[in-house]
Amino acid sequence: MPRATRVAIIGAGPAGLLLGQLLTVAGIDNVIIEQRSAEHVLGRIRAGILESVTVDALARAGVDQRLRAEGLRHHGIELSYRGARHRIDFHALIGRDVTVYGQTEVTRDLMAARAASGMPIVYEATDVSLHDFDTDRPRVTFRHAGSAHELACDYVAGCDGFHGVSRASVPETSTRIFERVYPFGWLGVLSETPPVADELIYASHERGFALCSMRSKTRSRYYVQVPATERAEAWSDARFWDELRARLDPAAAQALVTGPSIEKSIAPLRSFVCEPMRFGRLFLAGDAAHIVPPTGAKGLNLAASDVLYLADGLIAQYQRGDPAELDAYSAKCLRRVWKAERFSWWMTALLHRFPDADAFAHRIQQAELDYLVGSEAACRALAENYVGLPA
Amino acid sequence: MPRATRVAIIGAGPAGLLLGQLLTVAGIDNVIIEQRSAEHVLGRIRAGILESVTVDALARAGVDQRLRAEGLRHHGIELSYRGARHRIDFHALIGRDVTVYGQTEVTRDLMAARAASGMPIVYEATDVSLHDFDTDRPRVTFRHAGSAHELACDYVAGCDGFHGVSRASVPETSTRIFERVYPFGWLGVLSETPPVADELIYASHERGFALCSMRSKTRSRYYVQVPATERAEAWSDARFWDELRARLDPAAAQALVTGPSIEKSIAPLRSFVCEPMRFGRLFLAGDAAHIVPPTGAKGLNLAASDVLYLADGLIAQYQRGDPAELDAYSAKCLRRVWKAERFSWWMTALLHRFPDADAFAHRIQQAELDYLVGSEAACRALAENYVGLPA
Repeated sequence: MPRATRVAIIGAGPAGLLLGQLLTVAGIDNVIIEQRSAEHVLGRIRAGILESVTVDALARAGVDQRLRAEGLRHHGIELSYRGARHRIDFHALIGRDVTVYGQTEVTRDLMAARAASGMPIVYEATDVSLHDFDTDRPRVTFRHAGSAHELACDYVAGCDGFHGVSRASVPETSTRIFERVYPFGWLGVLSETPPVADELIYASHERGFALCSMRSKTRSRYYVQVPATERAEAWSDARFWDELRARLDPAAAQALVTGPSIEKSIAPLRSFVCEPMRFGRLFLAGDAAHIVPPTGAKGLNLAASDVLYLADGLIAQYQRGDPAELDAYSAKCLRRVWKAERFSWWMTALLHRFPDADAFAHRIQQAELDYLVGSEAACRALAENYVGLPA
Repeated sequence: MPRATRVAIIGAGPAGLLLGQLLTVAGIDNVIIEQRSAEHVLGRIRAGILESVTVDALARAGVDQRLRAEGLRHHGIELSYRGARHRIDFHALIGRDVTVYGQTEVTRDLMAARAASGMPIVYEATDVSLHDFDTDRPRVTFRHAGSAHELACDYVAGCDGFHGVSRASVPETSTRIFERVYPFGWLGVLSETPPVADELIYASHERGFALCSMRSKTRSRYYVQVPATERAEAWSDARFWDELRARLDPAAAQALVTGPSIEKSIAPLRSFVCEPMRFGRLFLAGDAAHIVPPTGAKGLNLAASDVLYLADGLIAQYQRGDPAELDAYSAKCLRRVWKAERFSWWMTALLHRFPDADAFAHRIQQAELDYLVGSEAACRALAENYVGLPA
């Protein structure tokens, strides 16, 4: 275990691993410290839609081989409501697309690259604590395999998610928090069944929102909106499939292939932003600084763009002694973050049933769907946000 | 006073007058019955932005001469926020524009055409009452100049606004009402001063929304958002100008020419839709059926498109015995109405300060403005709604 490094990265999810790889490629020493095991990290089922900005970041990190071979290029999505489906053709509208490739696979590829690089990564670290990041000599202390460790560093990258220690280490008086908790969650099921359609189906229905997503041509990921108080144990596979089918248009309901669930869990929906994203020599990236509801598929992609900005800032600092990009990090990230927060909030509001919505709000929601599917301009606005605004 | 007519039109605002003129041009007898005096109708200060659909309807009614000569063609609007202005160029985005010509002038032109046509119009009718519109023989009774009158007709057109007798004559059990009352109103001032800019300025500011509008190159109309409980009497001219100036970008604040107010009043903001818009032989049109907040400048334009659909339906019925268009009236109107309701609600939400908005909502509003002014697709979506979706 090294006693010192240049960048201490807290968290070995995709954000931390990607940052580590980008720095390693640039010749900047770094150590990754993760509280959970590698198996636990890989066991988390998350997003699966990559913007081209994210794919490019993974390419720059040298971990895009399997992604290029196995990722599915999607040229559009489908909106389902009032019994019919309407395609939004990203490729025709703006000449761009997204790549379907599970976050679990991204993490696996990044882990393999980390292992191949030989750079240090510590799993199952306990009592992780950040010190002195408001000085020129930050330190990270933790326990691992029964021993106490201290790691001196130039910078700390907080990539340890919403519940991690990084943001929690910052005095509350130094941050401003923006938050919206939605009164529902997504009940998700993973199954070894072929997807119901070639592209994702976003369904808005009286019974609630549903999403037909996928990880590959043989593995499907489906979601139904449930109350925030719901428990996954209350949902048998049969109940889940019945509910999903009831929310789809007749053609999709008929085409749906069901099977045993491999995984079933409920994720709450939340919008959250912490401002700023830099505190002295501590930089927050990804979910440590912001959360979006998954409707717009922006969580992983925002993490990737944060990490790109941070890697570029660190590289400019180390290679040219230029602190300008690090100094601009928080403001630059937040401009992109807020646009993604807005899009994710909007798409969530457009497609979900809100328990406190009155009849006027329902009609406005239907009118917005009617306007959207009939307007090329509105479809283009959705498309450019979904595939990702320029980094 | 005739004892019978084909179409009894309740209300001599722009909707009723336009319908009367379109029917007269088509040779269909009609009588207009209005509770107020002509002077009172002309004294109401209302909207001033005409969509091309509305201009075309006025042309078809033969009352577009002065409008063509004096109306100002506006190729865009300006959005002002965080101290800077951003132009949305309708002409460049979608090749269309709007015409600035006060509703008072539209009403004046329609009144003149009515007088020239010699068709009956009754002002200051009292005790107006609709009867038997659920049968083939509707009747309208009213008192005028001391006498009781009864007018038999084939159809009744309810063009008498939100507070009129037409919608009130329909049993509540036959309607479904959708409503949103906003916690603010617009304090408006009319002044004989040159407009601050060539186009309208929509300003979103911490202190609240403001709008710089105009009626001509020498007459301006300005508004500031105020709490719904505010009284116009509390606002001296000086206080109004100070408040307006405080909400504008520095360049506009500096260019603002102030002067004595000719008119000063507060209008509440409301979204309202009554479904359906037809009850037997009674057809509601314009504000009698729906209200929009004025932010999107849609009120008069929606009234004009209702009236166009209704005139076409009546003409098809009388000239070809074809009831299909009358039968489709309500559904056809409501499709357009709900898209305008959505746009008006959206533009209101985008630009106003809501007293119950939290910090997250404020940031989302700012992010939406930032996204809007930077996205051609989003600007096009605004533009196509503002100039008017196809009839």
